[in-house]
Amino acid sequence: MREAILKTKNMLVSLKKMNFNMYRKDFLLSWDKSIEDIKAILSMADILRALYRDNVSLKVFQTGLGISLFRDMSTRTRMAYASACNLLGLGTFDMDESKTQITHGETIRETSNMISFLSEVIGIRDDMYIGRGHNFMKEVASSLNEGFSKGVLGHRPAVVNLQCDLDHPTQTLTDLQHLKNYFGSLESLRGKKIAMSWAYSPSYGKPLSVPQGVIALMSRFGAEVVLAHPAGYNLMPDVVKKAGEFAKESGGSFTVTEDMKEAFNGADVIYPKSWAPLEVMKKRTQLLNKGDEKGLTGLEKECLAQNAKHKDWVCDEDMVSLTKDKSAIYLHCLPADVQGVSCEYGEVTEDVFEKYRIQTYRQARHKPFIIAAIIIMCCFRDPVTLIDDKYRGNKHRSG
Amino acid sequence: MREAILKTKNMLVSLKKMNFNMYRKDFLLSWDKSIEDIKAILSMADILRALYRDNVSLKVFQTGLGISLFRDMSTRTRMAYASACNLLGLGTFDMDESKTQITHGETIRETSNMISFLSEVIGIRDDMYIGRGHNFMKEVASSLNEGFSKGVLGHRPAVVNLQCDLDHPTQTLTDLQHLKNYFGSLESLRGKKIAMSWAYSPSYGKPLSVPQGVIALMSRFGAEVVLAHPAGYNLMPDVVKKAGEFAKESGGSFTVTEDMKEAFNGADVIYPKSWAPLEVMKKRTQLLNKGDEKGLTGLEKECLAQNAKHKDWVCDEDMVSLTKDKSAIYLHCLPADVQGVSCEYGEVTEDVFEKYRIQTYRQARHKPFIIAAIIIMCCFRDPVTLIDDKYRGNKHRSG
Amino acid sequence: MREAILKTKNMLVSLKKMNFNMYRKDFLLSWDKSIEDIKAILSMADILRALYRDNVSLKVFQTGLGISLFRDMSTRTRMAYASACNLLGLGTFDMDESKTQITHGETIRETSNMISFLSEVIGIRDDMYIGRGHNFMKEVASSLNEGFSKGVLGHRPAVVNLQCDLDHPTQTLTDLQHLKNYFGSLESLRGKKIAMSWAYSPSYGKPLSVPQGVIALMSRFGAEVVLAHPAGYNLMPDVVKKAGEFAKESGGSFTVTEDMKEAFNGADVIYPKSWAPLEVMKKRTQLLNKGDEKGLTGLEKECLAQNAKHKDWVCDEDMVSLTKDKSAIYLHCLPADVQGVSCEYGEVTEDVFEKYRIQTYRQARHKPFIIAAIIIMCCFRDPVTLIDDKYRGNKHRSG
Repeated sequence: MREAILKTKNMLVSLKKMNFNMYRKDFLLSWDKSIEDIKAILSMADILRALYRDNVSLKVFQTGLGISLFRDMSTRTRMAYASACNLLGLGTFDMDESKTQITHGETIRETSNMISFLSEVIGIRDDMYIGRGHNFMKEVASSLNEGFSKGVLGHRPAVVNLQCDLDHPTQTLTDLQHLKNYFGSLESLRGKKIAMSWAYSPSYGKPLSVPQGVIALMSRFGAEVVLAHPAGYNLMPDVVKKAGEFAKESGGSFTVTEDMKEAFNGADVIYPKSWAPLEVMKKRTQLLNKGDEKGLTGLEKECLAQNAKHKDWVCDEDMVSLTKDKSAIYLHCLPADVQGVSCEYGEVTEDVFEKYRIQTYRQARHKPFIIAAIIIMCCFRDPVTLIDDKYRGNKHRSG
Repeated sequence: MREAILKTKNMLVSLKKMNFNMYRKDFLLSWDKSIEDIKAILSMADILRALYRDNVSLKVFQTGLGISLFRDMSTRTRMAYASACNLLGLGTFDMDESKTQITHGETIRETSNMISFLSEVIGIRDDMYIGRGHNFMKEVASSLNEGFSKGVLGHRPAVVNLQCDLDHPTQTLTDLQHLKNYFGSLESLRGKKIAMSWAYSPSYGKPLSVPQGVIALMSRFGAEVVLAHPAGYNLMPDVVKKAGEFAKESGGSFTVTEDMKEAFNGADVIYPKSWAPLEVMKKRTQLLNKGDEKGLTGLEKECLAQNAKHKDWVCDEDMVSLTKDKSAIYLHCLPADVQGVSCEYGEVTEDVFEKYRIQTYRQARHKPFIIAAIIIMCCFRDPVTLIDDKYRGNKHRSG
Repeated sequence: MREAILKTKNMLVSLKKMNFNMYRKDFLLSWDKSIEDIKAILSMADILRALYRDNVSLKVFQTGLGISLFRDMSTRTRMAYASACNLLGLGTFDMDESKTQITHGETIRETSNMISFLSEVIGIRDDMYIGRGHNFMKEVASSLNEGFSKGVLGHRPAVVNLQCDLDHPTQTLTDLQHLKNYFGSLESLRGKKIAMSWAYSPSYGKPLSVPQGVIALMSRFGAEVVLAHPAGYNLMPDVVKKAGEFAKESGGSFTVTEDMKEAFNGADVIYPKSWAPLEVMKKRTQLLNKGDEKGLTGLEKECLAQNAKHKDWVCDEDMVSLTKDKSAIYLHCLPADVQGVSCEYGEVTEDVFEKYRIQTYRQARHKPFIIAAIIIMCCFRDPVTLIDDKYRGNKHRSG
């Protein structure tokens, strides 16, 4: 116990010295944040988790709202966001667009201000269409800037990306936190081989944001990041380029292959996950904009047929046996398409998934704390002193 | 800063002397409240907003629920209500009638009691049918009276009208607060010309509650209130009569015209907004009660055709140039039907709306505090001392 | 007032001596709980209600979530659960399966862990299909056990049954609390005749959980419990057997009759309520599993026709006049099918229901406190000291 307390204190002391800079900024894309920002979030999330386990109340807000706007299904991010807001003392308000007048010709700039009078953070998921989600978040952000600068809003709530068409930073930071905890430190990632690989799924239209977020984040710590996918399943060129630059800067490497085995060979970390080809996603957006229902049905059929050619891109025992000591750590953002459980052919076989299942749950448990850390970093000028005071105050969270 | 503190203190001292009387009452119609009640709410809302900006925690409830029941779409009132409850420490619970047994033959008097055991306030929007919303709220209120008097409920939650068929008091008090802040005081409204005017919109069935609420509230402060609409778009005679009486009492005037220009001519305040003709709304209720789908479709067509004759009732540059110094203040409850933005022809042209847009956002920002003020006034015997204590206690809302 | 304080203090002293044992356990079936557990919950619920009325803050959680998962409609249990969580300081999060990825092949064991990282309690209603609800709750519970034992979860949230296919314990404890308050003590139930009777309703597929829960709970206090229903409307044999055993243990009796009058004759307590025949419910589950829409429509028709033969099973004045002093206490979980109000023929006539209506509301008011008591008992090692401290701390709930 004394050891745990000492560890938390040391983490706070270290964090106090870090040169992060997120106050009154949004959190939209991990690659727009400095490496110090990223490290500070992970460190803060670890501190919050330690204090939570010690039953310390982390209520930094007495009142205030955390708004969420989900334009796609979500279980764990929805829960993680609600949990994070609650942990910090914020009430949550889920904007259900079907119950509002947003569809009634209301503009984004107007709605953005209308929901922000007493709000501290706005979490958005808008991941289904290429060219939309990130732009939507930027429009919300600039509308808030206008409202704040013109005296409409007394303070400026932070916008947090809960998955867009480009990135899924609360997920990839969760993944990174898991690796940091698994290997002992971020420094230990240096030289590790991390394989982000496409895998088969019987579904269509899965976003590119997770694989893009993974290669653009993991490449910043000196690791050997490999991206693998069948021909035609390439990611957005800009993000791929960024991953290459980050790898160079950090002294690691970034390569792309069309061979899953090559990626898995000797890998320390494997992340087999399905996504849709960029070209299909682009076509889909165009057809949607035109309201071409028939075209969309055709595209779905075509895409599923194309996917079906790659059923051999599955993470099975043979694949895993290629990895470092046959025991790479397996990552997944969940839910995985498990062969024989949720589908006939999928991303991973049942026996492999079962071996790693509990590990993936442990991976997921970081997300509420990652989101809480982001909120604190965005909303408070001196978040470390704030949390240090909570710690010293030692008010119980429960009981 | 010292000046701001002094101002807040003075507002509290003044409010303490006012002769308001809202404790354990509902807030259903503005015209059933005394002028002292109205003034006290505005004053309390300004105090709450000032304290909020000073980061003072306004948590007057440790626990308790604010129930909402929306029988129509809502963005800003829904948000404002949730924000107000949260600001005061109440959790919110949105009754979704589709998920409850209300449709399962449950009576209003029963449901009203069932949702009230640990609730402090019940906010209701029921604005779509003439003869329904206000009656529904009265039935909820009398059911609570019964439950309270017979020992079912330990205390009696307040019912707050979040828009009914007759009035939309949280909106019109928001509008009034905006004018009070804009002109410096309620007294400054004396002699000001306020034009509440119908305007064209391509939609059908908009409630009468906003224009009715506006004429029946603005007429209480010595202003020259003018109601303008095309022939056939008259409001409920009772409310129009009330506006006339209030105008006489307050030393102002109230006139009705079928000429938009006449209304705008020399106006200090313009409020161009669409609504449905009373006769159409009555017919609609009858057809709905009969379940006459065909009749309803016919009525909608007929009404849209009738509306279309009045596309010239638009707030454009020419109209605005008729107003006092060509620069009357423009009000709207939002969202407005902006010509060229959300519709081909609408209530207001794009250039006019854009000029006033930020002003309308500033208008809207008062609503959470108006609702919070109403809740405090209804739930506490001595709300001024309560808030004064919060102020002196100086507990931070965030951080 | 002094008397009330003394009474509350005495209740706390008595509760402290009781030998209950619910810490870190779930609350799924009343018959799996010891008689001391049952008594302790009722006692705690009475204490919470007394303190609530004295405006004592009962916020035992600073932060934390109460999850709810409703797979069927609910007004009062939904409200009671939300109220109970709020009373204790928990935020609520309602899992809407249509907005999550649960339908997307996600397993129960996975979802159970994903929603539990910062949650304290999970309330579930799953009452529509025989063989499903209770099993679902057990699967959630065992998934949480796995997650907790393997370090996924820092603590183990409690699972609370908000109605399953077998039992509806928060309802039946509410009913029992009402009787305890009505007769003055649980001891007074000894020798009382309690008639749980089927009654006609024009609906189909009502769960068996309320009558089952009632006979298996009321039989534990020395009462003469009578179950009455037409031939073919029998309950699950296991539960009926349990009721018989409990009656024997407690020195009471348990009998079954196919004559409503026999059950009402001299009864102190009557509980007339409709339910579906077990055989029909079983068939329904089979047809549903097969996706046999036509079969389901046929079954519904058949069942309604069968019900219609028993329209004379109605609680009318004649029936009531058979009871003890013609004035047995009438119980109902609400909403009742009231003849002439919500249906042509129903469970109870309008005049009888009206006589007892306010009593049924008083019955219902116990539910939020029963649920709050269960949560406290499940989440805290020493709940009595905890509440005693709250009482001594005397922090106001409102104001």
